[in-house]
Amino acid sequence: MRQILLKIKYLGTNYHGWQVQDNAVTVQERLQDAVEEILGQRLDLTGCSRTDAGVHANEYCCTIKTESDVDCFKLQGGLNAKLPDDISVFSVSDVDLDFHPRYSCVKKQYVYKILNSRAKDPFLNGRALLYPQPLDVELLDRCAKDFIGTHDFTALSGSKCELEDCTRTIFDASVERDGDLVTFSVTGDGFLYNMVRIMVGTLLFINEGKIKPDGIRIILDKKDRAAAGRTAPAHGLYLNKVYYGGDVNE
Amino acid sequence: MRQILLKIKYLGTNYHGWQVQDNAVTVQERLQDAVEEILGQRLDLTGCSRTDAGVHANEYCCTIKTESDVDCFKLQGGLNAKLPDDISVFSVSDVDLDFHPRYSCVKKQYVYKILNSRAKDPFLNGRALLYPQPLDVELLDRCAKDFIGTHDFTALSGSKCELEDCTRTIFDASVERDGDLVTFSVTGDGFLYNMVRIMVGTLLFINEGKIKPDGIRIILDKKDRAAAGRTAPAHGLYLNKVYYGGDVNE
Repeated sequence: MRQILLKIKYLGTNYHGWQVQDNAVTVQERLQDAVEEILGQRLDLTGCSRTDAGVHANEYCCTIKTESDVDCFKLQGGLNAKLPDDISVFSVSDVDLDFHPRYSCVKKQYVYKILNSRAKDPFLNGRALLYPQPLDVELLDRCAKDFIGTHDFTALSGSKCELEDCTRTIFDASVERDGDLVTFSVTGDGFLYNMVRIMVGTLLFINEGKIKPDGIRIILDKKDRAAAGRTAPAHGLYLNKVYYGGDVNE
Repeated sequence: MRQILLKIKYLGTNYHGWQVQDNAVTVQERLQDAVEEILGQRLDLTGCSRTDAGVHANEYCCTIKTESDVDCFKLQGGLNAKLPDDISVFSVSDVDLDFHPRYSCVKKQYVYKILNSRAKDPFLNGRALLYPQPLDVELLDRCAKDFIGTHDFTALSGSKCELEDCTRTIFDASVERDGDLVTFSVTGDGFLYNMVRIMVGTLLFINEGKIKPDGIRIILDKKDRAAAGRTAPAHGLYLNKVYYGGDVNE
């Protein structure tokens, strides 16, 4: 038995997220189909996280366990030939059997792209949130720093935190502008359901004066979802990087 | 009577180029439809150039002449609301009646994007040529300099040059790498049919050893299309910038 790590990219527009579900096309199912075509077996795929419908991934990690002695290089080529054009495998490698794409992960980075323009952009359609009002990037970058640290993120979770420990550690958060494109980047040891999208919605509420610039610490202390901003749409969000310790990654 | 300059972007994937034609959807037709919906008149649109089916534009310029006193800002918003998501208007302004989007143009820049990777990329699907072999960017950048200057480009034209003067001036040409993305940029006073795509195909032939590194000058002298490289596919090509003299642009 061996374990193979697949690093993939996908445009999430046409998928109901990563995880297999009834009556909806998912990235996991498409990848399982391709693996089955190449290896002749329907294998379980273990992913590094769930992603919501419409969310994209610049790097998503998952593994298969198999007895096959397939060459990693050939497996990559075969999978890319079978996969639809909105999913690609950019790395295939053997990892230890005790590696787990979710539990071995030490941190993840998400980015959220905002097109800060009156006019839509054909090249960013479905790939960034169109936000026509002026955006005070310097202010939002300063405010985003208040997410950094170990906090109870109950107020920024889209699901109830009764059964789960909602404490997470955010290592870095920033807002940067490149022309009309404004990018929120956040790195943490884990993220609750919808947490990045609510972070973005909260920053946009600050931009719009609906939440005060010092509001993030207050919202975190309140542990009340209603105090935070709206949930920003899925189509601006990208799982950007998945970090593992040791020699698996980086 | 006034003349209004529209600067647009479009993703060319779903269009048979700019120019209206029978039995095919074009960018010009879609824009005419939108103008008609906003101004209530079917107006002629004069474009800065033809583009081939599947070619994209980061900047394409066209004008309408109208008696309407519509506000430019409102016209832009209205057109963007009516246009499909793969076309957008990013600038609307009044220009002199003697301005002509094609004849007033002093230079144009095209870029051609090559994804130099074994693996396809969902975010560049239909937006860059996938080229898996190693690419010697330093060599190709040096060779591209041989396009610069005033030459008879008959050898790099996809149509016959018998009736037309095929002399064009290229001001700049370069090949640059940013990670897996390799970009050929070329600026000139005008371009023949398929000329940029044949330039790219010729550079790829040099990369593959099918044409020698000093071959471009020889090919230009020969004035023989068969001596040049293949025509690179349309989907990597972008009309990137259109330059006018004076205060119309820049």
